[in-house]
Amino acid sequence: MESMTFVLFGSTGDLAKRKIFPALYNLYANQKMPQKISIIAVGRKEMSDSDLQAYVKQSLQTFSRSIIDDETRLADFLDAFRYSRFDATKIEDYQSLRDLVEQREKELHIPENRMFYLSVGPEFFDLIALNIKESGLGSTKGWKRLIIEKPFGHDLESARLLNANLTKAFEEEEIYRIDHYLGKPMVQNLEALAFANPVLQALWNNENIANVQITASETVGVEERAGYYDKSGALRDMFQNHMLQMLMMTAMQKPNKISANDIRNEKRKVMESLRPLKKEDVGLQVIRGQYTSGEMNGKQVNGYLDEPGIHSTSMNDTFIAAELWIDNSFWSGVPFYIRTGKRMKEKSTRIVIEFKDSANELYKDQNVKVAPNLLIIEINPNENVTLQLNSKNPLNGEIEPIKMNFTSNQKDVPEAYERLIYDAFRGDSTFFAHWKEVELAWEWVQPIIDAFSEGSVPLMQYESGSYGPKEAHQLLQNVGFKWWLDEETVVSKKEAVLV
Amino acid sequence: MESMTFVLFGSTGDLAKRKIFPALYNLYANQKMPQKISIIAVGRKEMSDSDLQAYVKQSLQTFSRSIIDDETRLADFLDAFRYSRFDATKIEDYQSLRDLVEQREKELHIPENRMFYLSVGPEFFDLIALNIKESGLGSTKGWKRLIIEKPFGHDLESARLLNANLTKAFEEEEIYRIDHYLGKPMVQNLEALAFANPVLQALWNNENIANVQITASETVGVEERAGYYDKSGALRDMFQNHMLQMLMMTAMQKPNKISANDIRNEKRKVMESLRPLKKEDVGLQVIRGQYTSGEMNGKQVNGYLDEPGIHSTSMNDTFIAAELWIDNSFWSGVPFYIRTGKRMKEKSTRIVIEFKDSANELYKDQNVKVAPNLLIIEINPNENVTLQLNSKNPLNGEIEPIKMNFTSNQKDVPEAYERLIYDAFRGDSTFFAHWKEVELAWEWVQPIIDAFSEGSVPLMQYESGSYGPKEAHQLLQNVGFKWWLDEETVVSKKEAVLV
Repeated sequence: MESMTFVLFGSTGDLAKRKIFPALYNLYANQKMPQKISIIAVGRKEMSDSDLQAYVKQSLQTFSRSIIDDETRLADFLDAFRYSRFDATKIEDYQSLRDLVEQREKELHIPENRMFYLSVGPEFFDLIALNIKESGLGSTKGWKRLIIEKPFGHDLESARLLNANLTKAFEEEEIYRIDHYLGKPMVQNLEALAFANPVLQALWNNENIANVQITASETVGVEERAGYYDKSGALRDMFQNHMLQMLMMTAMQKPNKISANDIRNEKRKVMESLRPLKKEDVGLQVIRGQYTSGEMNGKQVNGYLDEPGIHSTSMNDTFIAAELWIDNSFWSGVPFYIRTGKRMKEKSTRIVIEFKDSANELYKDQNVKVAPNLLIIEINPNENVTLQLNSKNPLNGEIEPIKMNFTSNQKDVPEAYERLIYDAFRGDSTFFAHWKEVELAWEWVQPIIDAFSEGSVPLMQYESGSYGPKEAHQLLQNVGFKWWLDEETVVSKKEAVLV
Repeated sequence: MESMTFVLFGSTGDLAKRKIFPALYNLYANQKMPQKISIIAVGRKEMSDSDLQAYVKQSLQTFSRSIIDDETRLADFLDAFRYSRFDATKIEDYQSLRDLVEQREKELHIPENRMFYLSVGPEFFDLIALNIKESGLGSTKGWKRLIIEKPFGHDLESARLLNANLTKAFEEEEIYRIDHYLGKPMVQNLEALAFANPVLQALWNNENIANVQITASETVGVEERAGYYDKSGALRDMFQNHMLQMLMMTAMQKPNKISANDIRNEKRKVMESLRPLKKEDVGLQVIRGQYTSGEMNGKQVNGYLDEPGIHSTSMNDTFIAAELWIDNSFWSGVPFYIRTGKRMKEKSTRIVIEFKDSANELYKDQNVKVAPNLLIIEINPNENVTLQLNSKNPLNGEIEPIKMNFTSNQKDVPEAYERLIYDAFRGDSTFFAHWKEVELAWEWVQPIIDAFSEGSVPLMQYESGSYGPKEAHQLLQNVGFKWWLDEETVVSKKEAVLV
C-alpha cells in the first residue's frame, strides 16, 4: 500500500462520525493503513486542527468496534489529521485545500497519491469533483481516487448526467462507488461459495435451481430520514442498488480468474441479460407496497402516512417485490424473486436458493412428500450458510427435511466501511459498483419509476409487523412457490386460489 | 402385520439375550408387534416355560434400551413365550416343536405364519433348515420365513453349498439374511440422502466425485472371540459382508422406485460391475495387516500374536484396506477405498466422499490452495452428516474449509436388530442381504482368500493405537489422495516418496 493523502469532504457529518473515522482507526489499529498517511478533514464549520482531533477522538470512543485503550497509539493516529474549512462553491477554498495537501505531502515526504472521499449530499458530487480538477487538486504526479456513495442519481437520466460530470474530472478506474452491501462479509462470500466449491458450482444453474429469493426486510420505519425517503422510496433506496447488487453477486457466472475486472464483467453480463420490463407490464411483475399502522413487538406503531415529515397523501413505496428473469443459458427459466420493505415482521437479509424437486417422482408410491433442497445464505443480522437436505428420521424412518448449518463465530469482524476503505487504499475495486452496473440497474428500474409516477401500478397496503402485502405472496404462489423462511406465509393456500 | 409364530433357535445364547429379546420387547412396547404372536424359544438346556420367562425378563432388565417399568405390560409380553428343549440333530425334537407351534396357533387362533430365527452356530444352519422342512414345521397354510446371520459360508464354495441346502427348504424370498450394518440408521439413510436430495443426486457420479472412502475401525482387539476370529480375520468378519454392503449402499444408482426388489437390484448391479481382482494383483490393491503391541488410551496392550487363544505364528489379518473400481458409466475412474481394522486409534464407521478439486485452477493466481469439498457420513459411534465447503474468513478474507453439520439428536433410537426384526415381521426385505449380493461379494473376495493362503501377499504390521499399516496410507498417497479425518496421516509425504 502506497503512502497517500486522504481528503474527507463532509467530515462533520453523520457518516464520518459513525462509520468513516472508526473505520480509519480500526484499519490503523490492525496495520491496514499505508505506512504514511495525511488525513485532511474538510467541512463547513470553523474548527482548529486540535478541535478536529478532539472531535475524531470522541467519535472513536462512541462508535469504534475496537476499544480505544492505547493512548500513545491513539495520539499517533490523531496526529495524521488536519482540518480545512471549506465552502464547496468557492474555488479559492479548493486552492487553500490544495495548499494544505501539498504542504503535508512535503512535511511527511509522501508521494502525490490523493484519495477524495465525498461524504456529502448528492447535489455536491459533481460540483466538488469538477472543482477538484479546476483547482489543480486532482493534478497529481501520483494516483488519484474518488470515493462516493449512494444515491448515484435519482433516475436513469440524472445518473447519466452525474456520471458524465464526474468523468470530466476522474477516469472510471479512479471512481470507487460504495454500495455498502458489497462490503458485507456474506455478500463478499458469495463469490467464494459459488466458485471455490465444486459441489455448489455444479449446482449453480437452471438444471438444478427452481428459483432464487433475495430478501432484505427491515423492522424500522422511515425514522429521521422522512424528507429523503419520501422522495426516494424502497425502489431507489434499496432496490436499484443493494438488491440488484446482491442479484448480480448471486447470478454471475464463474469468471476466468478472480480479479476486479473479471468479476465486474460477470456482474455486468448479468445485468445485460436481465429481461427488460415494459412499462405496461410492471404491474404483473412488481408489487408496490406501503405500510399501515400495526403492532411491532407488542407496541402499536404509526402507518407510513402518519409518520412525521411524510406527506399525508404520499404514494411512496416502502416495500417492493419483483420477479426478474435472466435470459442467458445458465438462468433461462429460473425466476429471481426480490423483495425489500420497512416495518416488516423480521429484520433479515438473506438469499434462498430453492432447488428443483426431482425426488418426488421416486417417492410418490410411498405417499411421501419430499421437501425441496434449499441453500440459505443469511447476510444479516446473522451470518449463516445452511443447506436443507432430506434425511430419514432414525426413530420412524420417515423422510424429513434437516438443516446443515455453518455459523461464523468470528468476533470483531471488520465492518463494511473498513473493508471497503481498505480495498480502496489498495486500489482493489472488486467490491465497488462499476458505472455500467449502476447504469444498467437504472435502465432496468426506469420503467418501474415511470409506471409508479403515472399511477398505473396499484399501491398495496400491508400492516406493520407483517411479511408484506399479500400480493407479494401471490406473486410466488401463482407458480407454486412460496417465500421461504417467513415464520408463516401470510396468505393461506385457499385464499391464494380465490385470487 | 399378520399374526404369527416366532421360533427362536439358540434362545439361550448370547445374541438372544443381548439383542433379540430386547428387540422383541421394544417392538412390543412401541406397538410394532403383530396383534397376536406366539414366541417359541428353542434351546439345548432343560427349562420350563416359567424358567424361560424369568430368563427373558432378566435379559430385558439388563439389555433393553427402554426402561421396564410397567409390570402388567411386561407380564403380557412374557406370556407369549413358550420353551421347547431341542437337539438340532434329532428329528423327533422338531416334531415335538411342531406340535407345540400348532398347539399355540390353535390356542391363540392365529394363522400358520411362521418365522424361524437361527441364532445358532453356522454349522447348524442347513441342518436345521432341512429338518424344518422334513418335520413338516415348514409346511404351513400361511407364510414361512427364515432369518439367519453371518457367517454365510467361509468362502465362495461353502457359501454356495450352504445356500443350495437352505433353498431346498426355503425360497430365496423367504430367507432374510441379517447383516446388522444394514440395520444401522445412517446406513439405511444412505438411500434417502442419495435419492431424496436432488442436490446430492446431481453430484453422485464420476463427474463430481474424486474418490469414496469407507472406514470401519475398531479400538477393541479380538476379545473373547479368538477361536472364531483367528480362522475368519477382518476379510471374512468385516470386509466380505459389512464393508461391501456399505459399498453397495453408497454406489448404487437411483432405482425405478423405492422397493426392496428395486433397491436390491441396484445393489447387485454394483457388485456385478466391480472390477474383478486377479489373484496375482491382490498385493497391488489389498493391504493385509496385523496389529502389534502398542498403547491404547495410555495403556499398553498385547499384539495379536500374544492374545489368548491366538496361535503364536498366526498370519491372520486384523486389518484390510483395499482399492476397488466399479466399471460402469457412473463410477468409471473413481476409486473406492475400503479399510477395516481392530486396535485402531479410533472407533469410527464412516463414509467420506471427496469431490473433485475443480476450484484450484480459478484461484491459482491468488496463491490460494482450496481444500476439496467433502461429504462425510458418520455411522458410528455418532450419527452425523457433514458437508465440508470453502468459505471466506470474514476476518481476513482468506478462503478456508468450513463444516456444515447435521447431528440427529434423537434419543432412544431403535437398535439395528429391532429395525431388522420389524422389517422381517412386515415381510420387507430391503435391508437384508440377497443371495446374489452375498455370492458376488464372495466371488470378489475369493482371489484375496487364495492369495492370502498362498502367502503371496505380505502381512504388514501396525502398532495398536495407530491408523493401520503405513502401506494403507501409501495406497492413497500414490495417487495424491489421503484418508480423510484421521487425526493425522501416519506416514509423512516425504516417507511416501521414498517408497
